[in-house]
Amino acid sequence: MSLDVFFVPRSVAVIGASRTPGKVGYDLLANLINAGFSGDIFPINPGVDELLGRPCFPDMQAIGREVDLAVIVVPKEKVLPAVKQSIEAGAKGVVVITSGFREMGSEGFEIEKKMVDVCRRRAVRLLGPNCMGIINTDAALNTSFIGRYPEAGSISIFSQSGAVCAAMLDLCSSRHLGVAKMISIGNKADINEIDLLSWLAKDEKTKVIIGYLEDISAGDAFVKAAEEAASVKPVIILKAGTTATGRKAAASHTGVLAGADSAYGAAFKRSGVVRADSFEALFDYAAALALQPLPKGNRVLIITNAGGPGTIAADAVEKAGLQVAILENRTITFLREKLPRESSISNPIDVLGDAVPDRYAAAIEAAQQDPSVDAILVIMTPQTMTQPAETALAIASAIDGSKPVVASFMGGEDVLPGRKHLCAAGLPHYGSPERAVAALKAMHHYSLWKNRPPRQITHFRVNRRRVERIITRRMRTNRLMVGEVKGKDILSAYGFKIPHGAMAICQEEAVEIAERIGYPVALKIVSPNIIHKSDMGGIQLDLNNAEAIEDAYDLMMLKIRKRAPDARIDGIYVEQMIPRGLEVILGMNRDPQFGPMLMFGLGGIFVEVLKDVAFHLAPITEAEAVQMLMSTRSYAMLEGRRGQQGVDVNAIAVGLQRISQLTTDFPQIIELDINPFIVGDIGTEPIVADVHMNLTTLR
Amino acid sequence: MSLDVFFVPRSVAVIGASRTPGKVGYDLLANLINAGFSGDIFPINPGVDELLGRPCFPDMQAIGREVDLAVIVVPKEKVLPAVKQSIEAGAKGVVVITSGFREMGSEGFEIEKKMVDVCRRRAVRLLGPNCMGIINTDAALNTSFIGRYPEAGSISIFSQSGAVCAAMLDLCSSRHLGVAKMISIGNKADINEIDLLSWLAKDEKTKVIIGYLEDISAGDAFVKAAEEAASVKPVIILKAGTTATGRKAAASHTGVLAGADSAYGAAFKRSGVVRADSFEALFDYAAALALQPLPKGNRVLIITNAGGPGTIAADAVEKAGLQVAILENRTITFLREKLPRESSISNPIDVLGDAVPDRYAAAIEAAQQDPSVDAILVIMTPQTMTQPAETALAIASAIDGSKPVVASFMGGEDVLPGRKHLCAAGLPHYGSPERAVAALKAMHHYSLWKNRPPRQITHFRVNRRRVERIITRRMRTNRLMVGEVKGKDILSAYGFKIPHGAMAICQEEAVEIAERIGYPVALKIVSPNIIHKSDMGGIQLDLNNAEAIEDAYDLMMLKIRKRAPDARIDGIYVEQMIPRGLEVILGMNRDPQFGPMLMFGLGGIFVEVLKDVAFHLAPITEAEAVQMLMSTRSYAMLEGRRGQQGVDVNAIAVGLQRISQLTTDFPQIIELDINPFIVGDIGTEPIVADVHMNLTTLR
Repeated sequence: MSLDVFFVPRSVAVIGASRTPGKVGYDLLANLINAGFSGDIFPINPGVDELLGRPCFPDMQAIGREVDLAVIVVPKEKVLPAVKQSIEAGAKGVVVITSGFREMGSEGFEIEKKMVDVCRRRAVRLLGPNCMGIINTDAALNTSFIGRYPEAGSISIFSQSGAVCAAMLDLCSSRHLGVAKMISIGNKADINEIDLLSWLAKDEKTKVIIGYLEDISAGDAFVKAAEEAASVKPVIILKAGTTATGRKAAASHTGVLAGADSAYGAAFKRSGVVRADSFEALFDYAAALALQPLPKGNRVLIITNAGGPGTIAADAVEKAGLQVAILENRTITFLREKLPRESSISNPIDVLGDAVPDRYAAAIEAAQQDPSVDAILVIMTPQTMTQPAETALAIASAIDGSKPVVASFMGGEDVLPGRKHLCAAGLPHYGSPERAVAALKAMHHYSLWKNRPPRQITHFRVNRRRVERIITRRMRTNRLMVGEVKGKDILSAYGFKIPHGAMAICQEEAVEIAERIGYPVALKIVSPNIIHKSDMGGIQLDLNNAEAIEDAYDLMMLKIRKRAPDARIDGIYVEQMIPRGLEVILGMNRDPQFGPMLMFGLGGIFVEVLKDVAFHLAPITEAEAVQMLMSTRSYAMLEGRRGQQGVDVNAIAVGLQRISQLTTDFPQIIELDINPFIVGDIGTEPIVADVHMNLTTLR
Repeated sequence: MSLDVFFVPRSVAVIGASRTPGKVGYDLLANLINAGFSGDIFPINPGVDELLGRPCFPDMQAIGREVDLAVIVVPKEKVLPAVKQSIEAGAKGVVVITSGFREMGSEGFEIEKKMVDVCRRRAVRLLGPNCMGIINTDAALNTSFIGRYPEAGSISIFSQSGAVCAAMLDLCSSRHLGVAKMISIGNKADINEIDLLSWLAKDEKTKVIIGYLEDISAGDAFVKAAEEAASVKPVIILKAGTTATGRKAAASHTGVLAGADSAYGAAFKRSGVVRADSFEALFDYAAALALQPLPKGNRVLIITNAGGPGTIAADAVEKAGLQVAILENRTITFLREKLPRESSISNPIDVLGDAVPDRYAAAIEAAQQDPSVDAILVIMTPQTMTQPAETALAIASAIDGSKPVVASFMGGEDVLPGRKHLCAAGLPHYGSPERAVAALKAMHHYSLWKNRPPRQITHFRVNRRRVERIITRRMRTNRLMVGEVKGKDILSAYGFKIPHGAMAICQEEAVEIAERIGYPVALKIVSPNIIHKSDMGGIQLDLNNAEAIEDAYDLMMLKIRKRAPDARIDGIYVEQMIPRGLEVILGMNRDPQFGPMLMFGLGGIFVEVLKDVAFHLAPITEAEAVQMLMSTRSYAMLEGRRGQQGVDVNAIAVGLQRISQLTTDFPQIIELDINPFIVGDIGTEPIVADVHMNLTTLR
């Protein structure tokens, strides 16, 4: 069911309305009335006849007609009856403000579940409990008890924390950022961030969505909804609980345990969510994205009235991975005419300390004409001749909306008049050049995502039936750890190159196999009880003849019997020796929220010591797989260095895509580790040296 | 000569005072008069009798008595005569506001040098040119033309950019941070940041020094002055031009080229300078350091009135490398009594959305008593019952000054009354929990530096005479590249373990040497023209007998003659084979500003691909050397991993200290590279496998 009734109800009842100012039941009713809502408002309180000039009803039935939306603020033990009463009376939406449910333990959780059951049975949607309510400035609707009613505007806010919601609203006001909708989602018993993303994506008044989240209700659905929303408008999210400490703190007050931060990172990246890494960044990014067009590239022009701030800004641009734009010659010629002789006309453009407003205007006009400039950062410092207000007005009228322009008037009260005019003209302003540049970076990254090529998942021809048979048999017999031999069988069915080999159950057979596949060979122990084969003496390499095989076979058995006397030995795997190459690791871990998360890293110390790994949600495209490789610090190792030839990067990307297909096809695989995957020169096919998988019976 | 005359002159002349408002000569005089300076003020302008109610003089002589300080604002061609005139008239300090000197090219630079010459000959100090002047709130002295005169306070500001200076002053005002001194140092023709650090360190009114720099006048002196200043009060510096782009921008407007950022990083670290990584961070850190005591450790307690912001803060604490404090039991017991049952009493302490001010007070009192808490972060969000002003007052009166307390009242206008009271009570306030935590981190790091153990440089017994002989001979014969053989000689004299070996000039001699030092041996070509020996075929390893040596010798000569036909061959070095071990690189690069900068990194890809290196200025202490190793990402490699034994970390630290001593003793060495330095198990002595040095005749 649509959430429309929460945003544009024809009538609203407040169950638990109170006559005591300071109580939620009073403040909320007062807010609802004061916002100027044009629909009907019905206070409900059995002991009162009239409230704030409106007739008050003992219960929903007493109103005598259907009410679209019921807002419940009664004490927690009366909430469930109030929900039932609302539904009986025909409400299509219920907002439960009252707290004391899931967040207080299992007893509250049970009641919360009952609330949802009651609603679902009648197709009624529920917001909360433990929330602050909803605001829709377009309908002059305020069902919240937050003191501040925002100016109308284009930013919509949702938050899992009511307090953060209130702070966000307050900050929007003081930054003169208008609000379209505000939704405090509380415990998310029914309506969650996914519903809201879908609804806000379609809301015409919403230009930018900002959200605060501590966990996500359903990974797959979130990625889908966020991707759809981000395709039409920017979605900026502050995800708290990114560290172990933060997760503990979040769990202690919401009772939810968030997943790994790397999975969230991968999910946000996939779905185009702009991730705010601090509370202030939410608004820094929102202002730029709401007010300015997206940049077409990463080349930034800096206009300043002094060298120092220009230097600070240039540092920030480089550190952000953006580029300081190089002006075209005709722009320089144009500016030489317009600006004084002493002005520095490169980038940063220094319009000098005595800059009159029209110098800024000239520089902006020139920058807008110059195809080598993608974004403009205007800096002003308060100097004697500086006219902050007039400069802001001149800047505002010079802007033609073709490129994003952000400003930093550095200082305090002296530049305040300028900031106000920038605000009024819809120009995002930042307290420092560094923060302005961070906003440009967020815009650039969002723009890249939005203009990404269509996601084309390659579907490789594979032998799916074969894998299905292996997995089904394993699951039936509850052998959920898949070792090297069967693991290679599975990978081979999905197009991976596997060294020739076969299982032997005696020395003679081992020699026979070796003669067939050719020397040199390796022997590897096959046992469900031995995972770290080499630690147990279960691997012998580089055997060149029958005698060597026989010796190695004996030695291995001797060692294994000593080190793992209880291990069941299924046999010995005889395998071609693999040519040397670079060792990389391809892996998959099924995240409980987001599904198969692919992992890539260079082998050995790169993963173990440097933790230099990249993650991506499956399914993955070719471009994404290549991007994933490039995002590791050790990428230069793949490219080759000091004259050494690089390895076949595309072949690794293909490997990732094949794992992506395999683990998307088979949700039973919860873990997969190709370690090492041996990669050779360009044009060669990588080889799976070892693999390990885990299956699950769940799902 | 002391700078006192600039801060507490008895009289000030303004040469170039003007009657036209808006002109620097007018604004500056007006500022000087309006600030309330109690000394004499003499406007100088030949065409005017009276200015702003003061008699105006045609020139300095006409005043008829000595004037302490002359402030010069005449056009640039008249500056040099004005400086001369001032000195003649007995001025002890000269401030040149006028610009158009070094920053405009070589002609201006020449005049600037003349100004300084004239002054130095008479022991007169000069500030500027191209500066904004000086403010001393303690003496009500304002010789600047900046519009804003700050409130008196404990922060002193210096800046190489006048515009940044003005912005800093303005921002201090709007953040209610009082200012002690402000100095715009301009072109630093005479007085520079080093003079100011020394003077401000002794200034009683200055509690914190903040500075903006683009370059440093003299590395050694800077480190010394900054270290001395930082030992008594915090010094916070924003160093611009940290990126190539930023350096280019800085050079284009000041004409100075700053050194490598890694050298600045090492210099700041050594001297205890708190580095601000953004313009806003300067003030964020200054507020905390000026207003609050230093923390004794890194354990932070978070007090909040809602879970969400507590989670955001906990994330920030962990990301900053600080710890979320674990409360003692009696603190918890105490708080259980004082706070409502629903309050979360761990860390973050959640005093709940309806928190009355005394809950905050109780939590702060408890935290101050708890020895497991080193610093306190108080967070408030605007909720219905929230009383920001009253809460701020309650917090302020609960604070006993024993531990640092910082606050973040999240939001905008709703929490503004609270912020104001915090300000008034000297409690630093931040717009977001993340920024508050960043300030606590800066405090913690400064505190660690301030309480560092005394720097004890180990002096190893070395054969300095031997090295002196080698270097002197090399310099006399202008052979400035020191290769492996002599390099090892030098290192051996400084206590490094060198594999046994000797130079041979024929096959027979090579065999003879090998028999003496014992097999296996390596042969290495010795030629001043061949640096990358192995690329030229100039290295042969693992030779086990006379025949092998003879073959290798022939092969090497054959290859070298082909690949480097013109190379002069001094002979072949015969050396013991070095046992296997971990390869690390120890290096030294003499920074033009800061002198010998030591470098450490793991060999191979760690340096080449991952750029994982650490720097430190020589001389280095043992603790600093160990710290240096630990600061690399690859440190875990040294410690050992997955059951592997670690290498002798202390032996590497000793190596760094010996290089430190060598390169401090011999400034002629401008570059030194031990690559690789082979490190073995704990208790073994590392071995120098190869070394290369460069000498210089300069200095």
